[in-house]
Amino acid sequence: MRPQLYLDDLQVGQRFTTGTATLTTEAVKAFAAQFDPQPFHLDEAAGRASVFGRLVASGWHTGALSMRLLVEGEMRIAGGLIGLSGQLSWPQATYPGDTLRVESEILDIRVSATRPERGVITVRNRTLNQHDEIVQDAVVKILVPRRPQQ
Amino acid sequence: MRPQLYLDDLQVGQRFTTGTATLTTEAVKAFAAQFDPQPFHLDEAAGRASVFGRLVASGWHTGALSMRLLVEGEMRIAGGLIGLSGQLSWPQATYPGDTLRVESEILDIRVSATRPERGVITVRNRTLNQHDEIVQDAVVKILVPRRPQQ
Repeated sequence: MRPQLYLDDLQVGQRFTTGTATLTTEAVKAFAAQFDPQPFHLDEAAGRASVFGRLVASGWHTGALSMRLLVEGEMRIAGGLIGLSGQLSWPQATYPGDTLRVESEILDIRVSATRPERGVITVRNRTLNQHDEIVQDAVVKILVPRRPQQ
Repeated sequence: MRPQLYLDDLQVGQRFTTGTATLTTEAVKAFAAQFDPQPFHLDEAAGRASVFGRLVASGWHTGALSMRLLVEGEMRIAGGLIGLSGQLSWPQATYPGDTLRVESEILDIRVSATRPERGVITVRNRTLNQHDEIVQDAVVKILVPRRPQQ
């Protein structure tokens, strides 16, 4: 177990990485069947006929897989990764066979005015594919506890 | 099949609803095991010990389930629901047993300057639970084709 990070351990500009995960065709279709049953996520021919030109993963699948990478990655926040809000964009689609990773950078750190035992950090989490293209750009606010007083 | 909506069919202020979906404990744990394996999404006792006070669903699960409700809901956009970007917040957690629905309102409509055959709409998708509390507030930009010329 890596040590858990408290607000006091973090600084603006700090960077973290994750491992990688590869999206299979089967996983793309299974996720879509459950959560985003649109033809271009379910069927190769429908993908070719769509604006994407081929079968693509749901953006929510890209997001959910990025979350797993983050949970298992270097940025191990004490109490867990609890997102409050985020600005997300998907500049590029994710395709079956893509291998994703997430690179994170802390943009801002604030102690709560009303709850001094915790704070909120702003983190940019960029999900990249094997060509280093950004498939998800997420700037999120995460709840982080301060280190308990000894 | 309901008719598909083109940019020309939409107007600012237009509202759409969806059906409902209920999150089971089993579904919450299964999603978390695959995409957000944090203790408070996987185990009742860990949920009670967390800031949530009980087992909670991953925010990505709330988002993915909201997507399914939207895909199956009234706002049937021609060519599919293709999100470009979004601002999301989760003002309230989603708990096992919650029944969710999505209420949408069109905030803005723009024809593309460079691709006059399509445009981008801004939609607020609010996911509500059975107590009418907002569990996800998403303001998203969606690609919408114009009606093809006859």
